[in-house]
Amino acid sequence: MNKPETLKKLRVVGTTPVRPDGQEKVMGRAVYGDDFRLPGMLHGRVLRSPHAHAVIKSIDTRRAEKLAGVRAIITGKDFPKPSVALVPMGEGGYFDMNDFADNVIAKGKAFYHGHAIAAVAADSPHIAEEAIALIDVKYEVLKPVMNVRQAMAKGATVLHKEFNPGAFFMKTERVLPNASRLELKNGDAAKGLKEADVVVEREYTTETVHQGYIESHICTAQWDSNGLITIWCTTQGAFAIRDQVSIILAVPMSKVKVIPLEIGGGFGGKDTAYIEPLATMLARKADKPVKIVMSRAESLLSTGPSSGTYMKVKMGAKKDGMLSGGDLHFAFEAGAFPGGPIAAACLTSITRYNLPNVRIEGFDVMVNKPKIKPYRAPGATQSHFAVETVIDELAEKTGMDPVDFRLKNVTKQGDRLILGFPCPPIGSVELLTAVKNHPHYNAPLKGAHRGRGMAMGFWFGAGLTSSAELSVNGDGTVQLCTGSCDLSGTRLTLSMQCAEALGIDIDDVVPSIGDTHSVGYTFQSVGSRTTFATGIAVYETAQKILKQMAERAALIWQAAPDDVVFGEGIFTHKNDPSKRFGFKELAAKLDHSGGPISAQSTVTPHGVGFQVAAHLVDVEVDVETGKVEILRYTTFQDAGKAVHPDFVAGQMQGGAVQGIGWALNEEYWYNEQGQLVNTSLLDYRMPTALDMPMIEAVIIETGNPGHPYGVRGVGEVPIVPPPAAIANAIYRAIGVRPDALPMTPAKILKLLQQRRGSAAA
Amino acid sequence: MNKPETLKKLRVVGTTPVRPDGQEKVMGRAVYGDDFRLPGMLHGRVLRSPHAHAVIKSIDTRRAEKLAGVRAIITGKDFPKPSVALVPMGEGGYFDMNDFADNVIAKGKAFYHGHAIAAVAADSPHIAEEAIALIDVKYEVLKPVMNVRQAMAKGATVLHKEFNPGAFFMKTERVLPNASRLELKNGDAAKGLKEADVVVEREYTTETVHQGYIESHICTAQWDSNGLITIWCTTQGAFAIRDQVSIILAVPMSKVKVIPLEIGGGFGGKDTAYIEPLATMLARKADKPVKIVMSRAESLLSTGPSSGTYMKVKMGAKKDGMLSGGDLHFAFEAGAFPGGPIAAACLTSITRYNLPNVRIEGFDVMVNKPKIKPYRAPGATQSHFAVETVIDELAEKTGMDPVDFRLKNVTKQGDRLILGFPCPPIGSVELLTAVKNHPHYNAPLKGAHRGRGMAMGFWFGAGLTSSAELSVNGDGTVQLCTGSCDLSGTRLTLSMQCAEALGIDIDDVVPSIGDTHSVGYTFQSVGSRTTFATGIAVYETAQKILKQMAERAALIWQAAPDDVVFGEGIFTHKNDPSKRFGFKELAAKLDHSGGPISAQSTVTPHGVGFQVAAHLVDVEVDVETGKVEILRYTTFQDAGKAVHPDFVAGQMQGGAVQGIGWALNEEYWYNEQGQLVNTSLLDYRMPTALDMPMIEAVIIETGNPGHPYGVRGVGEVPIVPPPAAIANAIYRAIGVRPDALPMTPAKILKLLQQRRGSAAA
Repeated sequence: MNKPETLKKLRVVGTTPVRPDGQEKVMGRAVYGDDFRLPGMLHGRVLRSPHAHAVIKSIDTRRAEKLAGVRAIITGKDFPKPSVALVPMGEGGYFDMNDFADNVIAKGKAFYHGHAIAAVAADSPHIAEEAIALIDVKYEVLKPVMNVRQAMAKGATVLHKEFNPGAFFMKTERVLPNASRLELKNGDAAKGLKEADVVVEREYTTETVHQGYIESHICTAQWDSNGLITIWCTTQGAFAIRDQVSIILAVPMSKVKVIPLEIGGGFGGKDTAYIEPLATMLARKADKPVKIVMSRAESLLSTGPSSGTYMKVKMGAKKDGMLSGGDLHFAFEAGAFPGGPIAAACLTSITRYNLPNVRIEGFDVMVNKPKIKPYRAPGATQSHFAVETVIDELAEKTGMDPVDFRLKNVTKQGDRLILGFPCPPIGSVELLTAVKNHPHYNAPLKGAHRGRGMAMGFWFGAGLTSSAELSVNGDGTVQLCTGSCDLSGTRLTLSMQCAEALGIDIDDVVPSIGDTHSVGYTFQSVGSRTTFATGIAVYETAQKILKQMAERAALIWQAAPDDVVFGEGIFTHKNDPSKRFGFKELAAKLDHSGGPISAQSTVTPHGVGFQVAAHLVDVEVDVETGKVEILRYTTFQDAGKAVHPDFVAGQMQGGAVQGIGWALNEEYWYNEQGQLVNTSLLDYRMPTALDMPMIEAVIIETGNPGHPYGVRGVGEVPIVPPPAAIANAIYRAIGVRPDALPMTPAKILKLLQQRRGSAAA
Repeated sequence: MNKPETLKKLRVVGTTPVRPDGQEKVMGRAVYGDDFRLPGMLHGRVLRSPHAHAVIKSIDTRRAEKLAGVRAIITGKDFPKPSVALVPMGEGGYFDMNDFADNVIAKGKAFYHGHAIAAVAADSPHIAEEAIALIDVKYEVLKPVMNVRQAMAKGATVLHKEFNPGAFFMKTERVLPNASRLELKNGDAAKGLKEADVVVEREYTTETVHQGYIESHICTAQWDSNGLITIWCTTQGAFAIRDQVSIILAVPMSKVKVIPLEIGGGFGGKDTAYIEPLATMLARKADKPVKIVMSRAESLLSTGPSSGTYMKVKMGAKKDGMLSGGDLHFAFEAGAFPGGPIAAACLTSITRYNLPNVRIEGFDVMVNKPKIKPYRAPGATQSHFAVETVIDELAEKTGMDPVDFRLKNVTKQGDRLILGFPCPPIGSVELLTAVKNHPHYNAPLKGAHRGRGMAMGFWFGAGLTSSAELSVNGDGTVQLCTGSCDLSGTRLTLSMQCAEALGIDIDDVVPSIGDTHSVGYTFQSVGSRTTFATGIAVYETAQKILKQMAERAALIWQAAPDDVVFGEGIFTHKNDPSKRFGFKELAAKLDHSGGPISAQSTVTPHGVGFQVAAHLVDVEVDVETGKVEILRYTTFQDAGKAVHPDFVAGQMQGGAVQGIGWALNEEYWYNEQGQLVNTSLLDYRMPTALDMPMIEAVIIETGNPGHPYGVRGVGEVPIVPPPAAIANAIYRAIGVRPDALPMTPAKILKLLQQRRGSAAA
């Protein structure tokens, strides 16, 4: 096990070198999707449904075709049946590729405002835009269902006569025309609640929110005369886009080459093909490369936000603060097609606590909104909002400090988790102890309408497949090529693990990101997996390099390979310590002792370390306007081992910022016809730097034994606690518990009215 | 050993599928150097010395700097000392990187007409051209030496006070101010010649010739703010350019990323950095990407042609036709810096024959011409011209058929070669037998001034390092990435070996060429090595894939990995033949039996099979004009195993065409000041399609045991026999033996005069 004391010996891991891509990005020279262009390239634009739910009676493209400069027009009819129907995903779940295909372009029915209906490629973006306005579509408008309760109500409009149920990574069962269900159980929930001394039951709603990546979706596609499709795009996973395009267009996987460009944010939203199949089909039809750039409105309208929800949480605790039982009900939007994050929402909802008797019921609910996508710890932010405010109330009602209450119940290594397996090593106690001991927790908070709140967060993280390749040069420098798109500095965190393993300096490692034709399969940069799983691929590859180099040293020394040992950057003859080679010294001898060396690994590691975080926040509520101001914010998180502490802090801060936005401002606004009316980030009310306090990041390092340097993923869990922590702080400030996100001034004023009402009563 | 009978069982190797890059190239859509552009890119032009030999007294760039649109100007002073002085090459040879650096841009002295003096980057190519005209250079002009005899003469102008002698891959010793020498010996040459019944001694000259690739040198370079240099260029070897740029600019190798674009011909001339370091330095100075496109004149003036020579060959044979001794003297131009192909010229000159007593003396001679570069079987065409015409004369003088004479002396497996090691399996007897039995050899050739000639050719070929990477997709298709630039269809020949090894169809393999950051080290596509050596990398990688897949089959069948056998495309349980998986079937199960798989190999194979060829040609000489017309041409060659017979035939035909051009037309013309005056392909007199007959290709397959499918390299040896074969045919047509290349009408008329003179005498 990687205990902190052993991790202290690391030479590169744990330091904070400058990122190799930083300066180019700051200078505006890194190549993002919009910077990329090909000679003779056409520009694509997409006609999108103005209706939330409508049968497409006819599409007449004749007027558009006549416009000078229009080179190709496609509709759903141009697309084949996907080559694969169901792609297994996780434990019994799967993706229905027909849904993915229908989400790319409507076939007969538009399921949400913004659903693609047709696409045009033209000589300029302006001509393409003019052309889509000339496409005549006849719709039969249907009544939309716009939230989970509407969709689950009797007599609700049915979106799909048939569908393959399935949540993000578990099987669900269709139980209602628009919804499917899963249930998780531990012990006897009813008995546990009956035995409780205190029971809290509350209902919650949250709204649809978007990841809000600053760079929209952009791609350029080419279909060459030899049948090779090349796609340059902004994505979290070149192979994910490759696989989807291949299946949706029914072409062999090897014929789709995806070249990932720099990415301006993803957060889970950029591993699904939206415009890529459209640009590719246009490229084939026009016989020229086609670029499509989504506008901000299109990005909000047509890509995958996170679910709005209805949640009902009932939990009980004994007088001593031990949780005894719970009955949890979560209904999450799936959007227009099945497969939202309900399984993850349920699985993570109470995993951080030992709850002996619990029933969790989850519903994956179709509504006339874009197909829901993972957004940083998908589903957990919503379910934690409900559970962590109930926990806060239970702590209050049992008269306990909220940290002490959690410490009493928190899951420790070996505790049995909801799916039956024992909890791996986890820094939950260390985390909560750090909160308790932190100056913020112990600082006085004086003044009216001020309150301090705290919430904990949990996330699984992912392992999955990653590939890395290493080549050693004669001057002792190395190239590291991986398949992981760099969302958050992983070029550097992977290079650091490489330098650590090879005993060289970080400056001697030059990282690059391969395309789908030059690097082994690598699952997308999601699930906080890159520094963990691709890190293991790098480490394994470095071991292969060291083995080959030791063999060369043996050859040069005329020794047996086993006689050569490597440590602290030096190859030594174990029986003759005078025989020594530094890495660079030996690298210079490779060419003439058998040739240059390289190595490659594709790994699918287990041993992903769970992520736990706790956030502590002080707020002040302006009781005149209902505005909540954040006075102080501290995040605590177990990073296992922080490869680059500044980057870890950046993830913690970034996640907190997004969670704060979700807590206080962000939401999709639909009108009665189901049309999205706030299609800019200003109206959507993404927070700005002015809305944010400094966020302090406290990193705890407990070591993850599943990774050679003790790494856990760190990217997702920081978005989980903010809404609950802020709700708990608001309660302390105004004495009423918020039960709906976002906690806008209007909602806070309503809560204040409520309080005055109940005080008056 | 790979005997032809075993090779017959191959399923893909030996067929002729369509090349995957063909259509894009024919359509003009493949991306060559000139097609590549970057936003904000500047255009570079190079100021070149008008003098063959001159001291640079001063360079004044002030007028040029003032020109609007000029962004950077560099001279030799902007360049550092190379980071490495001597790079070992072959057996005791090396490259002096200071010479490479001085060849890129002159430092104090211009050594040839066309030597780079300064370079400019500007907003347009036109401004750059204007700017170079505004650079004021003061020269002190020195007397040039323009051929090997001038350079070796007493009192010749000395090019370099000091130099590191060394030929292409052997050590040489400085014996004259402008020349270094090597000697090879077998037995006692004087004794062998004394014992001969017939001795022939002749002197030869040949002129400097260029590879004449249709695409000139083109590169675009970028130096980013993080210190990473990226170069897109036309090259035979991305790693060669990487290494040279790294050393010449004294930056770490990992900081230079070379991305090879399509290549419009190379023939040995495109693995040296000429404009790449200039574009890179300009890019750094201007802080923008810089593209340089060499004009045709620059390509002829400043890149590396093949040596002009002086040769003297004395060989003797006994009455029975057995060669008894030889004394061979070769003086080859090295150009302005040491290191021409003299070692290869000497080594290959008589290796195809058993010559018990021989001395070979070679001189690497510096002259004021561009630094010589390998050109397809470097050095062999010249030395064979001399030796194969002497052989022809010895056959004539011993009264033997020229094929029978050769059959008597030809090297067979196990015969001792000049460097002392035994000859590996070689199809020399099969080859000559095929010539004897061919209708062309036996067809009557009637008419005046017509003659039939024949010559044999030999070339070593190269092994060296290659890397390949393979990834298997869920649909059973695979990606194959190698580091070998594709000059001649190797994408396909490598894919074919991959399909053969994996038991899949050629359409299921999609090849690509990696850049220096995404693929393991791969030596350049030279030495006829790609289909051979990179083929072995592909084969080894395929074996790793099959092993991993067998392990997965074992996992699925709950069997031991050793229980799974693979044959004819099927994985079978050896104890239960009902358990079977086709490759595609098993590929579909990889994702969920442990994850996708990839594999990589970097190999440095021995076992390269030598190349032998024989060319048979009928000519007619127009005695009025001296023009030689080729009536019929047949090439014979041992391919070991022809992976793609059409491509092998293409190599044989292409090599013959270049050899015919060399024989009849091509030469560098210098004026008395040492300035090149024929700087276009028209004046240089590259042959056109109208000059060429149909060339028949007869492929012999003897199998090379050093390669799993029996492959020998095929690209180089076909250029070797033409000058000698044509000279022998001309002799039969006009009764005089040509002794100088090219055998232009003027030279033929001179020979005819000679004949009339001697007839009159």
